[in-house]
Parts: sequence; C-alpha cells; structure tokens
Amino acid sequence: MATSAASRVANLVLRVITVVLLLISLIVISTNSKVDEINEVKLKFQNVKAYRYMLSAIVIGTAYGLLQLAFTIHNLVSNGEGNLLFDFYGDKIVSYLLATGAAAGFGVTVDMKTLFESINYDFGNFYAKAYASSSLLLLAFLCTAVLSVLSSYALPKSL
Amino acid sequence: MATSAASRVANLVLRVITVVLLLISLIVISTNSKVDEINEVKLKFQNVKAYRYMLSAIVIGTAYGLLQLAFTIHNLVSNGEGNLLFDFYGDKIVSYLLATGAAAGFGVTVDMKTLFESINYDFGNFYAKAYASSSLLLLAFLCTAVLSVLSSYALPKSL
Repeated sequence: MATSAASRVANLVLRVITVVLLLISLIVISTNSKVDEINEVKLKFQNVKAYRYMLSAIVIGTAYGLLQLAFTIHNLVSNGEGNLLFDFYGDKIVSYLLATGAAAGFGVTVDMKTLFESINYDFGNFYAKAYASSSLLLLAFLCTAVLSVLSSYALPKSL
Repeated sequence: MATSAASRVANLVLRVITVVLLLISLIVISTNSKVDEINEVKLKFQNVKAYRYMLSAIVIGTAYGLLQLAFTIHNLVSNGEGNLLFDFYGDKIVSYLLATGAAAGFGVTVDMKTLFESINYDFGNFYAKAYASSSLLLLAFLCTAVLSVLSSYALPKSL
C-alpha cells in the first residue's frame, strides 16, 4: 500500500518548517555576542560550551533536514516509499539530538543569567537572544518528534 | 503472534537497569551540596534551576519505569501483550524527558564550573557529583531509547 497523499504532504510541510526553524535558530545563536560596558568584558556564544553543542545540533539537524527534504520531494514525484528504516532511525536520532541541544541551551541560559547578574555583569539582550534560539530549536524538535512518530507508524511497510 | 520470550526478557532486563540507574542518579543529585570555605558560600543543587529540571525528569522517569516494570512482569506471567500504544508513546515521551534532563545537567555543569573557577570559588567535588548524576541519567536515557525502538517495532501488532 502506498502512503496516502495527505500523509506525504504533512511530511513535506513538517520537513520544510523544521529546516526554516533551524536556519533562523542558527542565525540567532551564531550572531549572539554582547559587551558588558562597565566591566569591559565581551561575551560571545563561543565562550559557552553548551551553546557550541547547541550549534552542532542545529548544523547536523539542518543537514539531515535538507537531505530528507530532497528525499521527500523525490518520493512525492516518483510516488515511491523511500527508505523507511533510514527515516525511522534518522528521525529518532536527530530528534534526540535537537531535544538535547535545546535543553542544554535553556539549562545554561537560565542559570548563567542568574549567576552573571549576581556578580553585576550586564550582557543586555544576550540571554533573550539565547532563549529565542533555544525556543526555535525546541519547536524544530517538536516537528521532528511528530515526524518520528509518523516514520514509526510507516515502519511496518518495510518489514 | 505473541512476542518472543527473548524479547520479553530483554525488555524486563532493560527496564530493571533503567530504574536502578535512575535511583542512583536521584540519590547522587539530591544529596549534592558543597561549601566554599574561602567565600563561605554554600552551593546546593536546588540553587541551580537546571538541576531541578533534571530532578523532575528523574522522578517522572522512575515512576514511569516502576509502572512499566509492573506491567512487564504481569505480561510475562500472563503471556499477554499489554497496551502496545501506551508502551510506544510512553517510552518515546519519557526517553525525550530523560535526554533533555541529562543535556540540561551536562550543559549547566560544564559552564558553571568554568565560571565559578574564573571568580575563584571552589566547590570541590560538587561538579564531579553533578557529572556522575548526569552520566547515570544519560545511561538510563540510552536504555529507554532502546526500549523505545523495541516498542516501535512491536506497534504493528496493535494496528
């Protein structure tokens, strides 16, 4: 049985949304740096190891998303099924990667903000941008989690 | 087709290991507090929001693990299948919860350590204990991720 047209379109839409969210998240986090005027200290996203992990997760997620987008369009045109096992494991692993990236981002931002404020460092909207990037990554994770449920349901066709 | 005896035993073993890992992780993180002798500041795990999230993830994961352990033993004795849809969504959601808990724990620990050391605060083995707890949580996540793959493969029997 071929996958229904509705499910194929849902798949395509979710993959497009995921890639767009990841690209915006990538731009926001990679341009995030602020100078504390009083203490003359510059805080860049590269200084925080958790943000570097987050960036890796976003880059790998984007590469995987673009690859899957190409496959999805190819399957849509050729009316094929693609590789269901690759979809199943790919979506599962990448969704864990995006979830952990977002969690590391949120986790470090909330406590770093408290800590820096307690020693009177003011990095302005550095934290707001970090939260924005983490939130976009969280949304991209949610899309991938739904895709992972869909590819789990599609798995029996490969067995 | 009933699930094979080998797969049932694998399921039971993984569930037992997950609960044991989560319980040790719970004890390690919830007893973690250290006093910095020079500045006379006490750092408790409750002061760090990311650790509180981690603790919540461990507690929910343990409750779910114990429930699933009871179901698994019941299914083993009665030779039943249990609720395959509950297993599928439960394992999926709880594995994401444990993954994000571990990521938040690692993320905050690595950067908090750097930050505290740069302002000459010494909390001794506080970070080592936080890493230990996060690592145990990561292992519990890996067990749950494998369980989630198994319950995805079992899903077709419920359709």
